[in-house]
Amino acid sequence: MKNIVQPSTLPGFMELLPKDQLVFNQMKDIIRNNYEKHGFLPIDTPVLEKQEVLLAKGGGETEKQIYAFQKGSTDIAMRFDLTVPLARYVSQHYSDLSFPFRRYHIGKVYRGERAQKGRFREFYQCDIDIIGNDKLSIINDGEIPSIIESTFMDLGFDEFTIHINNRRILNGFYRALGIDDTTDVLRVVDKLDKIGIDSVKEELEKLGLSQDSIEKIAEFIAIDGTTEEIFDQLDKLQVEDEDYKKGVEELKEVFEIASALGVKSEHMIPDMKIARGLDYYTGTVYETILDNYPSIGSVCSGGRYDDLASHYTKQKLPGVGISIGLSRLYYQLNEAGLLKSYDQKGTDCLIIPFDETKIEGLKLLKTLRDEGISCQLYGESGKIGKKFKYADHMDVPYAIVLGQSEVEGGKPKLRNMKTGEEESLTIDEILSVLKK
Amino acid sequence: MKNIVQPSTLPGFMELLPKDQLVFNQMKDIIRNNYEKHGFLPIDTPVLEKQEVLLAKGGGETEKQIYAFQKGSTDIAMRFDLTVPLARYVSQHYSDLSFPFRRYHIGKVYRGERAQKGRFREFYQCDIDIIGNDKLSIINDGEIPSIIESTFMDLGFDEFTIHINNRRILNGFYRALGIDDTTDVLRVVDKLDKIGIDSVKEELEKLGLSQDSIEKIAEFIAIDGTTEEIFDQLDKLQVEDEDYKKGVEELKEVFEIASALGVKSEHMIPDMKIARGLDYYTGTVYETILDNYPSIGSVCSGGRYDDLASHYTKQKLPGVGISIGLSRLYYQLNEAGLLKSYDQKGTDCLIIPFDETKIEGLKLLKTLRDEGISCQLYGESGKIGKKFKYADHMDVPYAIVLGQSEVEGGKPKLRNMKTGEEESLTIDEILSVLKK
Repeated sequence: MKNIVQPSTLPGFMELLPKDQLVFNQMKDIIRNNYEKHGFLPIDTPVLEKQEVLLAKGGGETEKQIYAFQKGSTDIAMRFDLTVPLARYVSQHYSDLSFPFRRYHIGKVYRGERAQKGRFREFYQCDIDIIGNDKLSIINDGEIPSIIESTFMDLGFDEFTIHINNRRILNGFYRALGIDDTTDVLRVVDKLDKIGIDSVKEELEKLGLSQDSIEKIAEFIAIDGTTEEIFDQLDKLQVEDEDYKKGVEELKEVFEIASALGVKSEHMIPDMKIARGLDYYTGTVYETILDNYPSIGSVCSGGRYDDLASHYTKQKLPGVGISIGLSRLYYQLNEAGLLKSYDQKGTDCLIIPFDETKIEGLKLLKTLRDEGISCQLYGESGKIGKKFKYADHMDVPYAIVLGQSEVEGGKPKLRNMKTGEEESLTIDEILSVLKK
Repeated sequence: MKNIVQPSTLPGFMELLPKDQLVFNQMKDIIRNNYEKHGFLPIDTPVLEKQEVLLAKGGGETEKQIYAFQKGSTDIAMRFDLTVPLARYVSQHYSDLSFPFRRYHIGKVYRGERAQKGRFREFYQCDIDIIGNDKLSIINDGEIPSIIESTFMDLGFDEFTIHINNRRILNGFYRALGIDDTTDVLRVVDKLDKIGIDSVKEELEKLGLSQDSIEKIAEFIAIDGTTEEIFDQLDKLQVEDEDYKKGVEELKEVFEIASALGVKSEHMIPDMKIARGLDYYTGTVYETILDNYPSIGSVCSGGRYDDLASHYTKQKLPGVGISIGLSRLYYQLNEAGLLKSYDQKGTDCLIIPFDETKIEGLKLLKTLRDEGISCQLYGESGKIGKKFKYADHMDVPYAIVLGQSEVEGGKPKLRNMKTGEEESLTIDEILSVLKK
């Protein structure tokens, strides 16, 4: 007897049943369609790259998580995001691209993280970036919120807020307080929602900041209100720093541009608390929160960076981009029961012939498919009950029963699988029902 | 100064420029749409699997080519096809699936082959399979040619032939000659097109076959004509073997079913020369040849197998399926200049505002996108010539020039980028041109 190997996937790898996969793919299609509608072109880079390329930046958490191995004498690694491959791609194909280069990339990336609920070692990222050659207009930063809005509306959400900040405001504000290295301060401020303002103040004190500075930071991160009110307060702070002023100016422009593109005012807000990581972004930063599910965290984030590909080219390539972590988003929305409105139907119709009407069934199958209807014939022999059970389990909305009498009368029975209603209809009538 | 790492991909990995990627993605979409229209549901399995799972069958060329590595204490491998993951998937999720289980899977697979022109180490496979529980009707074998026909017609080909055989015919025919292990004979016969009948006979002689057997084999593989003529000749051979008879009967049924599904007679032919590998397939086998480009080899192959997942389950799971190796197909068609009819345009329209009309340009951008037009605004400052050059390079069919006078008059200039013609039109007029 043959040895049986237990069929199972590696821990931390997502795999869905077909009916869930249909929902996942719908979400992926919606994102792709939005990216294309907004004038982004597709790229598709290899999952495997040279280790020296992927790790050119080097160091940190990433290097520990990366899947890396040798094949022959080659050091290979699996990509852990789509940004490093983009930097390599743009550097390598620089002379073949037009700038601003607008690309979208939807693909799997790999991180050997410690397994935990909702964290996957293989997951889809859906990225767009706009890369300039030497410079890139702020108009691109202003376009991003309209792409996020359009995508999440199409994904079925109306209540979300894009939180927008500008790293120059942060750098300028903290520099004016005499804080040059903002890493620790931003890390503390980032915990505000979790630990509250009093604990933030305590932690800032531990960092050795003066009471005066701490009060000013508290005031700064408490800035709130409408977009106009927030800009008023930013002006009133009268921070004497060129970066601060430039950052506020850019942030105002982003809101002006996004408004011209029709982004609803309730869908975006300036937020002095967000910073998006610590060394990558240099200007505008974005986080997107589902208003009723803030615990999910940001569902779409990104920002502006000065220099995409300094590890691969001397060209200065500034850019702005966002990323949707689709696998995690899908998982969390599904857990929260928010994907029920999605249609899980794959196939429109199942034709059920009898043994003696199989050929007629096949001809009907062709007719329906020629009309663009996604259709399947149940070709196995067996009792009618088993066949309906199959139709039920497949979630097809309609079944067509084709006995000898139906063939002779030219009127197959169309069964609505939800209601159980059956009607004898001509092929034309069936077509008009199925096309609805 | 920073160290610059040479930006390059690993040898043997395909990477396309966006305009080629658009064509590749169109082909992928056409294949996916056809698979869905024919009632197949999507699955998406991890690229990484447990080594013991992927190599359960073990041995052979595959094991040498596989990308395998350790992470922590886990032995991991990258999938080298989509069939082994399917076998694992169906075994693992057996109780959640309905049979016949019709799935499509389009994804990347990995083989560390010796690099050579047109062979890739990472490539897309586009597979469909229909898996039965214990048994599976021949009707499914008959449906496959109609799916191949529909897919390749949609891909833009009309002149192709699906060569169909049945392994039982081969087994029965050769067994009747006293040849039980057909491996060597089939390997020689497979070379017929390359080396000619005389060399085939010589090689068969070297295998120790009698002159009588060699003549019968020569007669068998020379069987030719229309489908009807071929079936006549198969009957006339009067091979006294049950498998042979059953095989011929099945093959006839496949042609009958495919005809009922409307497959054109010139698109399929019985072919006693094809066998598709040596130990996997047990019934119907398919190869698809582009009539004018036979040197490309089969562009879509597959067949019937008795038992998909014997390494993972005691359930008997017979199936039938086909696979399109998309990366290789794309490469070969592109090399042969056969993809020129594909439309490379990604974005429908580029809006070119001046500095003082940017906000108006953004409003127009929103209007067009709301109407479903894929559209981009050139937001950088610079001379008009540079902007047109960008439009040219991006292959957009239309550009809209929006100066102050155009804004005031309510009639932007629409430029046909192919002809260079410009017309001042109202927004409604522009929409009706772009929607064509």
